[in-house]
Amino acid sequence: MLPVRPELVGQEPYGAPQLDVPVRLNVNENPFPLPPVVVDAVTEATRGLAAGLNRYPDRDAVALRRRLAGYLGHGLDERHIWAANGSNEVMTHLLQAFAGPGRRVLTFTPTYSMYPEYARNTWSDYVTLPRCEDFSIDLDAFEAAVGQEMPHVVIVTTPNNPTGTATPLEVIARILEITENGEASAMVIVDEAYQEFARPGTASALDLLEDNPRLVVTRTMSKAFGFAGGRLGYLAAAPEVVDVCRVVRLPYHLSAVTQAVASAAVDHADVLMGQVAELRAQRDRMEAELRGMGLEVAESDANFVLFGRFEDRHAVWADLLERGVLIREVGPPGWLRVSAGTPEETDAFLRAMSEIVPDAVLMDTAVMTDEAAAQVNRSNA
Amino acid sequence: MLPVRPELVGQEPYGAPQLDVPVRLNVNENPFPLPPVVVDAVTEATRGLAAGLNRYPDRDAVALRRRLAGYLGHGLDERHIWAANGSNEVMTHLLQAFAGPGRRVLTFTPTYSMYPEYARNTWSDYVTLPRCEDFSIDLDAFEAAVGQEMPHVVIVTTPNNPTGTATPLEVIARILEITENGEASAMVIVDEAYQEFARPGTASALDLLEDNPRLVVTRTMSKAFGFAGGRLGYLAAAPEVVDVCRVVRLPYHLSAVTQAVASAAVDHADVLMGQVAELRAQRDRMEAELRGMGLEVAESDANFVLFGRFEDRHAVWADLLERGVLIREVGPPGWLRVSAGTPEETDAFLRAMSEIVPDAVLMDTAVMTDEAAAQVNRSNA
Repeated sequence: MLPVRPELVGQEPYGAPQLDVPVRLNVNENPFPLPPVVVDAVTEATRGLAAGLNRYPDRDAVALRRRLAGYLGHGLDERHIWAANGSNEVMTHLLQAFAGPGRRVLTFTPTYSMYPEYARNTWSDYVTLPRCEDFSIDLDAFEAAVGQEMPHVVIVTTPNNPTGTATPLEVIARILEITENGEASAMVIVDEAYQEFARPGTASALDLLEDNPRLVVTRTMSKAFGFAGGRLGYLAAAPEVVDVCRVVRLPYHLSAVTQAVASAAVDHADVLMGQVAELRAQRDRMEAELRGMGLEVAESDANFVLFGRFEDRHAVWADLLERGVLIREVGPPGWLRVSAGTPEETDAFLRAMSEIVPDAVLMDTAVMTDEAAAQVNRSNA
Repeated sequence: MLPVRPELVGQEPYGAPQLDVPVRLNVNENPFPLPPVVVDAVTEATRGLAAGLNRYPDRDAVALRRRLAGYLGHGLDERHIWAANGSNEVMTHLLQAFAGPGRRVLTFTPTYSMYPEYARNTWSDYVTLPRCEDFSIDLDAFEAAVGQEMPHVVIVTTPNNPTGTATPLEVIARILEITENGEASAMVIVDEAYQEFARPGTASALDLLEDNPRLVVTRTMSKAFGFAGGRLGYLAAAPEVVDVCRVVRLPYHLSAVTQAVASAAVDHADVLMGQVAELRAQRDRMEAELRGMGLEVAESDANFVLFGRFEDRHAVWADLLERGVLIREVGPPGWLRVSAGTPEETDAFLRAMSEIVPDAVLMDTAVMTDEAAAQVNRSNA
């Protein structure tokens, strides 16, 4: 027997099934392929650097970070930006710097299912506080939890995954106040992976950065940019936060190709973002039509919709798969999550749902409200 | 003040200075640019996948792992191979799986200066055992240290960095025996980053894989492949080791571009390896000429040479830099490390050295042998 760490024995690798089906609406990808102008730019970026691949890349990825700062605006420059191989690595750097053994990470559930993985990989304790019935954050319960748990890192996901719920700036500002406690203050990470899909007028936590060195706003190129295959996550924060990320990162973490290809994509942000309005429209259409089928639908500011609740959600998931539509079985009991697709993919999903829903049994949700009582959950990750 | 983990306060980011000088012989890169045929292959690989970058990559990087298995031979297939963003990430996965809080990693110093960083990032204890005067491994001292320290992971670097020393297979076999202790057995990681540069006849630990599930052989595309900018490290081991890496890796850790570009490079392994013999020749020439200047030179099976010992090695390093030659100030006191360059770069280095050495003061090494007495060093990383 190998000397594997005991907490890993019997664990399975994380990840949604990667199935080859006609309509893939399971991992919140942008369904539109990169347009030819970006394909050319990315290809030429690779050609330009390929001969020099014998050399290590720029350890600080300055050119890419400068471009990302330009994209975000808000008076940011490269000193405020950190980038890594997907948000996964950005979050890992943050937890290595501010959490780790003996420290606690607090999130609001239901939320992104990778957070406990980041906590596990950094041996941070993982503490969750349930959201309200409408998936908003209960600030009174949070204040009590902070007093009790003294978290070192709080993650606010907005728009939240898998619910799609946006958190108003006032709530984030209040979370920053509640976590201000001198030596025992917490870092507040606002995960805005889906921010570009928010309904017009939804403010970004970037607005709060200037006065809050404990605030970190994370973003990704996987969603609105349509660049999931390029694996580029980033954050905006005070330069001292970036400096700590530079200490914990292993050198040359971003390849020369990743830096150049992502830079080329950021240079074409306007083109890549061209489909965001279309995806918002498909999301809104999904919301409306699913409600029209008599289903519960969470209000979404992301590129996906959480709907339900089904007595047997797995059966609905499997019925969709049988019709060539792959969605995600995730979230609280009874709910399913579907990503906004192209108009044709959305058609296919809604057509399949119209066939499935008449036979699906919905949950009796009246008896369930007690379960949602705010209560902290801990796991030694 | 930010709630940074106390052990990180005041730390500096790791890495050799990235200076723009004519002759860069400081980070053991392959000095030959990728030839046009590989530039074309890498560019076309990018063009072929770019439109699909909106989708997440193959989480298991099967096509790339299959190619790497083919390159290594030894009857290996993709189930025996794991790949990640540079050896840095491969090693991190291994320590997350087999070391971590409360567990110990043992190495033989002087050795690669990244190991304590991997230990720090995984909160593993880091224990070192000094090598002998000739930089070989003292098996008796090792056996005593294993009894005393009970390491969970032992790292053997061969050829060793920064000394260039190869470790014979019999010694590795003996290390596997010594660390066999039922439930308290250790994983033995043999880091063969520089194996392709070893003198003909130097066996690889791959020969020992079949009978040893506790053995892991790590490799990189950064050195002999001349692909440092592509960031691709990999390992060969029993499938159950790969399975544990799949549990600790964060999903989609290898971008679609990295997978495709690295695959294209492996497809051209013969071309890329074409310069290995030339680099061996330059290394041997450096060894001979530095000895001819009256210097100590460690026998090297890598693409670099450790030489010295200088009373003031920093002065020699700076004198070289002034002449446009960047080498590395690393290794035990008095030593310097230089990477094998192109013939012209090697000329430039040796010419500069011939100017510098006459004025350099050598260490009186007769009085130093006591310091090397085998003694375990611990750090709570």
